[in-house]
Amino acid sequence: MNKFKIMVVNGPNMNLLGTREPEIYGSDTLASIEKRLSQCAQDHALDIDFRQSNHEGELVTWIQEAGQSFSGIIINPAAYTHTSVAILDALKACQIPVIELHLSNPYARERFRRRSLISPVATGVICGFGAYGYELALTTMANLVKD
Amino acid sequence: MNKFKIMVVNGPNMNLLGTREPEIYGSDTLASIEKRLSQCAQDHALDIDFRQSNHEGELVTWIQEAGQSFSGIIINPAAYTHTSVAILDALKACQIPVIELHLSNPYARERFRRRSLISPVATGVICGFGAYGYELALTTMANLVKD
Amino acid sequence: MNKFKIMVVNGPNMNLLGTREPEIYGSDTLASIEKRLSQCAQDHALDIDFRQSNHEGELVTWIQEAGQSFSGIIINPAAYTHTSVAILDALKACQIPVIELHLSNPYARERFRRRSLISPVATGVICGFGAYGYELALTTMANLVKD
Amino acid sequence: MNKFKIMVVNGPNMNLLGTREPEIYGSDTLASIEKRLSQCAQDHALDIDFRQSNHEGELVTWIQEAGQSFSGIIINPAAYTHTSVAILDALKACQIPVIELHLSNPYARERFRRRSLISPVATGVICGFGAYGYELALTTMANLVKD
Amino acid sequence: MNKFKIMVVNGPNMNLLGTREPEIYGSDTLASIEKRLSQCAQDHALDIDFRQSNHEGELVTWIQEAGQSFSGIIINPAAYTHTSVAILDALKACQIPVIELHLSNPYARERFRRRSLISPVATGVICGFGAYGYELALTTMANLVKD
Amino acid sequence: MNKFKIMVVNGPNMNLLGTREPEIYGSDTLASIEKRLSQCAQDHALDIDFRQSNHEGELVTWIQEAGQSFSGIIINPAAYTHTSVAILDALKACQIPVIELHLSNPYARERFRRRSLISPVATGVICGFGAYGYELALTTMANLVKD
Amino acid sequence: MNKFKIMVVNGPNMNLLGTREPEIYGSDTLASIEKRLSQCAQDHALDIDFRQSNHEGELVTWIQEAGQSFSGIIINPAAYTHTSVAILDALKACQIPVIELHLSNPYARERFRRRSLISPVATGVICGFGAYGYELALTTMANLVKD
Amino acid sequence: MNKFKIMVVNGPNMNLLGTREPEIYGSDTLASIEKRLSQCAQDHALDIDFRQSNHEGELVTWIQEAGQSFSGIIINPAAYTHTSVAILDALKACQIPVIELHLSNPYARERFRRRSLISPVATGVICGFGAYGYELALTTMANLVKD
Amino acid sequence: MNKFKIMVVNGPNMNLLGTREPEIYGSDTLASIEKRLSQCAQDHALDIDFRQSNHEGELVTWIQEAGQSFSGIIINPAAYTHTSVAILDALKACQIPVIELHLSNPYARERFRRRSLISPVATGVICGFGAYGYELALTTMANLVKD
Amino acid sequence: MNKFKIMVVNGPNMNLLGTREPEIYGSDTLASIEKRLSQCAQDHALDIDFRQSNHEGELVTWIQEAGQSFSGIIINPAAYTHTSVAILDALKACQIPVIELHLSNPYARERFRRRSLISPVATGVICGFGAYGYELALTTMANLVKD
Amino acid sequence: MNKFKIMVVNGPNMNLLGTREPEIYGSDTLASIEKRLSQCAQDHALDIDFRQSNHEGELVTWIQEAGQSFSGIIINPAAYTHTSVAILDALKACQIPVIELHLSNPYARERFRRRSLISPVATGVICGFGAYGYELALTTMANLVKD
Amino acid sequence: MNKFKIMVVNGPNMNLLGTREPEIYGSDTLASIEKRLSQCAQDHALDIDFRQSNHEGELVTWIQEAGQSFSGIIINPAAYTHTSVAILDALKACQIPVIELHLSNPYARERFRRRSLISPVATGVICGFGAYGYELALTTMANLVKD
Repeated sequence: MNKFKIMVVNGPNMNLLGTREPEIYGSDTLASIEKRLSQCAQDHALDIDFRQSNHEGELVTWIQEAGQSFSGIIINPAAYTHTSVAILDALKACQIPVIELHLSNPYARERFRRRSLISPVATGVICGFGAYGYELALTTMANLVKD
Repeated sequence: MNKFKIMVVNGPNMNLLGTREPEIYGSDTLASIEKRLSQCAQDHALDIDFRQSNHEGELVTWIQEAGQSFSGIIINPAAYTHTSVAILDALKACQIPVIELHLSNPYARERFRRRSLISPVATGVICGFGAYGYELALTTMANLVKD
Repeated sequence: MNKFKIMVVNGPNMNLLGTREPEIYGSDTLASIEKRLSQCAQDHALDIDFRQSNHEGELVTWIQEAGQSFSGIIINPAAYTHTSVAILDALKACQIPVIELHLSNPYARERFRRRSLISPVATGVICGFGAYGYELALTTMANLVKD
Repeated sequence: MNKFKIMVVNGPNMNLLGTREPEIYGSDTLASIEKRLSQCAQDHALDIDFRQSNHEGELVTWIQEAGQSFSGIIINPAAYTHTSVAILDALKACQIPVIELHLSNPYARERFRRRSLISPVATGVICGFGAYGYELALTTMANLVKD
Repeated sequence: MNKFKIMVVNGPNMNLLGTREPEIYGSDTLASIEKRLSQCAQDHALDIDFRQSNHEGELVTWIQEAGQSFSGIIINPAAYTHTSVAILDALKACQIPVIELHLSNPYARERFRRRSLISPVATGVICGFGAYGYELALTTMANLVKD
Repeated sequence: MNKFKIMVVNGPNMNLLGTREPEIYGSDTLASIEKRLSQCAQDHALDIDFRQSNHEGELVTWIQEAGQSFSGIIINPAAYTHTSVAILDALKACQIPVIELHLSNPYARERFRRRSLISPVATGVICGFGAYGYELALTTMANLVKD
Repeated sequence: MNKFKIMVVNGPNMNLLGTREPEIYGSDTLASIEKRLSQCAQDHALDIDFRQSNHEGELVTWIQEAGQSFSGIIINPAAYTHTSVAILDALKACQIPVIELHLSNPYARERFRRRSLISPVATGVICGFGAYGYELALTTMANLVKD
Repeated sequence: MNKFKIMVVNGPNMNLLGTREPEIYGSDTLASIEKRLSQCAQDHALDIDFRQSNHEGELVTWIQEAGQSFSGIIINPAAYTHTSVAILDALKACQIPVIELHLSNPYARERFRRRSLISPVATGVICGFGAYGYELALTTMANLVKD
Repeated sequence: MNKFKIMVVNGPNMNLLGTREPEIYGSDTLASIEKRLSQCAQDHALDIDFRQSNHEGELVTWIQEAGQSFSGIIINPAAYTHTSVAILDALKACQIPVIELHLSNPYARERFRRRSLISPVATGVICGFGAYGYELALTTMANLVKD
Repeated sequence: MNKFKIMVVNGPNMNLLGTREPEIYGSDTLASIEKRLSQCAQDHALDIDFRQSNHEGELVTWIQEAGQSFSGIIINPAAYTHTSVAILDALKACQIPVIELHLSNPYARERFRRRSLISPVATGVICGFGAYGYELALTTMANLVKD
Repeated sequence: MNKFKIMVVNGPNMNLLGTREPEIYGSDTLASIEKRLSQCAQDHALDIDFRQSNHEGELVTWIQEAGQSFSGIIINPAAYTHTSVAILDALKACQIPVIELHLSNPYARERFRRRSLISPVATGVICGFGAYGYELALTTMANLVKD
Repeated sequence: MNKFKIMVVNGPNMNLLGTREPEIYGSDTLASIEKRLSQCAQDHALDIDFRQSNHEGELVTWIQEAGQSFSGIIINPAAYTHTSVAILDALKACQIPVIELHLSNPYARERFRRRSLISPVATGVICGFGAYGYELALTTMANLVKD
């Protein structure tokens, strides 16, 4: 039997994780998160495809790809959360569950981080729980795709 | 050994759950959620105290109580999310983790539901996953209080 | 044959009627209004349950009750008109006609009294006709519930 | 003894009533409303003069006329509710009661329909009760002019 | 000879005083403030009635009571400063002096704490002087009620 | 030698002058103003054409006419000051001096009267001097057209 | 066989075309446009009825007429684009295609010209191509009505 | 018989007149304006005291002086039009007529020049007629003080 | 003789056309549009270069290229319509006609889709006519480049 | 032993006190206030230096002086409350307690009087108690400087 | 040969430099800056006139003087950056280069410090480089005046 | 001894320099600027790496690279100044000095160019001095990195 495939998409500057503002984002690196998440995926019998890009256009292309051959998207849109209508449109065109994820709680930070263009098209949002949020999101996605 | 005690606080109209706008909030009742959550608490070796009130003042009093003798708060502030500075102040005075929870994704609804007064003082936010969000929140809280 | 039951709900400070700012609200007391309204209800073969509370939470609870065992709600939300999402949510959960009533014309007063959170979920609104507005609302409700 | 004369003024597009967006405005035509209202006027021993115009200027002229030789104005300003300072000024110059009337509840529709330029100079406002609102307004007017 | 009676009303979370954010609110408890204030009242030959509630509705009821049998109100509305039209209306209905009091200077804090709904109906405002502000307010009230 | 022709255009409700809100607009009627202004025109060797309309469209047509065969326009746009882009466009298309005139000082009145759509295309503005302002405007126009 | 009838409606000041601000609107007159458009209509086997009015009310009446006996409306609402809810309501009541047309590109002009009240109810919008835009609109309408 | 004394107050940078942006303000200097105005004052049997200052505080002091020993103030507040509450307060404290004067039409310039803090306390406003506006203002003031 | 070359630029997610929200965008694919447009180009003796990218930067580079070696640009900026100052700057640097094109009518959709950063630098705008709009735009461009 | 020196700074138009708008500011003059305050200072063993200026720059200089050789500042910034960043900066540079004082309650007056630029840097604020507020402020200052 | 004369103008509270908020503004005093700048001026063969005032009016007068007999202005408008239209007007009247200078980066501070009224009329702006910015500005000015 | 390495990053459309809107940006090309800047770098014993991209994502990647192996960043973010949170985040993650540079003075241009997302994280800002600004920035950077 085929496993459900979940795309995990990370936005700009997420490759700096662990070095950039650790008091806000924690000291996990993206590699260590991917590793733990792969284990978690295995536990839920899911396949994950874990990616990061600084390019809005590349993120759009990946989301389109997910919409065609994946069962769910977990997306940490980082800075593009607040500025990208293109990502919003790409997600809107998908027919699969979308979980928006943030390591920190954007509502406790600068004013302009409070507006997410993405949230209105997400199935749900998880934020503020650091690297642990990825596992939480994957567990939730497992729950969603199996319904 | 004593278990960690978690207060689960539900705001106004949550007692209608299962009857009110099921296309938005699902058909679970608050009682069925409490039941499932108790099981989940047991799995995590936590004690939960599950409450609901339509009174802003009563919610404030409960949060004060939680701040003094509980290890964490999971709060679904419902309508008071958008209007209560008093609940914000009560949560701010607590020294324990706070998870803000919404059944639906408020960002996909009316404009005035997009502003949460509560989020800036929450540790994190989970929304859009229906009744399942309670279990998610409790699992996360287990993770937080054990750190 | 059972009469239709109508709940008439009065918000904060309405118990002061007749003493508070009579140039705006008139000199009728809430008791004299209730008395005249009972007579009017009898004329329309309706039962009314006339209540007043200063507590937002209590008003929410009453509206929930009305939604379950009354045929219509006439509500003068007073100050909560402008601040209560909880009352909005409670009214939205009801499946019965709702008439929003104001003694004075809020559009002729302070700016912040021009925004009603309640109006979007009311069947209709009547304002500016003083104590007489209650009879008008009940007559209209008689018309609505008999349809 | 002379009867009180009431002018009933209908704004732009009201002549389409019964054909235009019946799910919002109902299926009554303006002619059928006038007919029922004439009967109602007779019951209250009032004379009504029922008019409709698409021209802001003509509505202003009629209101001026009402201010000089009528005892009250019932006005459904329709689209001009939201844009006409000229009608506001004409009504303000009258010394007689003014009832603002809307078939639908504008607060439950598009955002720009929520602002009425007229309301601050109306004695009172009735909205959301369809064609029945005209009878309600006339009954209220009877009450006002006899005081 | 009867002494003037002054009601001292404390809003939500004021019962936490001394424990909550002491760097903003100081380390006095509400009990210690009441004690010192009683002494101060004696010096001014005033009677004080010192109360606290987390309930907006209860605060409204107390203010109504004060309006009927007290000579002045000193109110620290706390969080309701920024959200309660009901308290505004209750104070407006009183014919007695009202002093609005804040321990901290709200203008030096978060943006939303800068708007007071209460101030426009207060005789005057005192803020920023910690627990000492109560004595200041009572001294001022003595001066006002004796005029 | 031909005299310069000046069109004096009066907007909606100006025909009520002398009866409407005399504490704001004074007790002169439009007829008495026209009479005095004719005398003033004679002194300046100007011809005036004095008009009033409640119709925005008619005012637009008159301004177009003035643009083709008059030497200047004095306009008291009344309520259309604040709402008419059509009058703005008509005035903009004229190649002659335009004086905007108001009897009262709109800046001392309701907020919405502070915005004039007309002022940006007027040569100058005169307001607050009552009926005397017409003579002032004509004297100024005499000065402008003779340059 | 009957031809489709298209109403072409021109708003205020369009009769000045060719004389008014030619650097913005070009040097074609409305008559020359009508002439060319008649030829174009013939090519598409359409009948056109070409009108202009400075009166908002008259435009409303014409649109109502079009809604009852025409197959499409091409409207250049000119200044009323930005201010007329009445025209918006009239167009909304029609069940036929509506093309909104502007000679110039309003987005490249004053700020207040950027908001069109009409666009949300138009099938489509064409702007910035001068007099040629009329032929473009008619060609498009031919395409729409033949579907 | 004593003549009426009128203070003519000029705000910051008015001393540059004739050199600064002549395409907006014309080529008259302040000295030449004063000279012509003195002649005009003589014609109206008025005394004028013509002053200029770049200091907001000095302008305030002069207005206070005018309030005590002059019969009217003509003020061209220049840049302080848009920023000075102190001048607003000084003018408000005077019991004499105040004419606000601008050489250019501020409504045809930058956005921030459209808001005058002064206008609400002026008797009337004259703008857009260049240096000639001073004579116009003085003629009007003669008319006002003689009433 | 060389044909005029027109670049047709499609923004993010336009490659999904025909699959994404067909009730808004229609069922044509980008390939089928290109095909029909090539035929249309041939009819007008134009050469078209039809492109699509999800990358803002690539779109900027293409527009720069068009500015140097093409005669006109037809651009459907999709999501970047509302967010890209870079595309605005690139278009502004071109000296050739620019037609902005949208399949749907953005004014009839979400609020944030009503603001186009691009429109102020476009020659003209065409929206709401689906895939047919491309042919319309090309016909118009033929008209523009041949002038 | 040296007494603490307190500077009492009064802003523009305060020299008019007792003559200007006595219904708002009372009938005390600044001289009578200074006299009473001197007595009060003596009671508290404080030295006061009581000043008034209409010049923002002079007030800035005095505050700088106070920052260097006084123990506290009581400031009634009058009109500059709402407009002076320079006074804000000067106060911010002081290391001594600052009490902001207003005779009237600015929150009960015009909208623009509700924003104080000064409050965020004041230790505390006292307003609404007329001339008595000065004594209150001095008593409070005595309390602050002796800590 | 005459040297170019540059006026260096410092706004309110700049005389406190070195004592006021050194973590923002550094520990240089204005005197030490002037000294270093004189050396720098000598290197560039420029004459500088270095001034400071707390008075907006005096700054205006100096700028007027500079406009008449200097070759360039370097201005650190300090608090008046955000509030002075008078300084804006004075600078606008000058025909010489203007460099706006700030020690700190105002965009990294309080919100109201982000709006400069001065920047739109400056040739250029330099901010964030502390006392060193003066030398940078003078070097740039040398470059500008020699062109 | 190793030289300090400075990355000079140019945003979208900067490659057009010298051809695009020369009245705003001057006639220097990016190549000629780089050449002059290399000379300047040599004078200051710095190494520069001069780059340009139209891609937001590429700029983000370069800034990340600079943060790891360069001593300072000079960035002319061009259009992304106003829209890129991603660049803001990348710069924020660097621990090195950042100078924001603009050729023109954005405060003297369109409104939307006045908001820089980048400025709050820059060490300082230089704008308005054309190509010369690059040398100025490099000189300043030399000063900063040597501290």
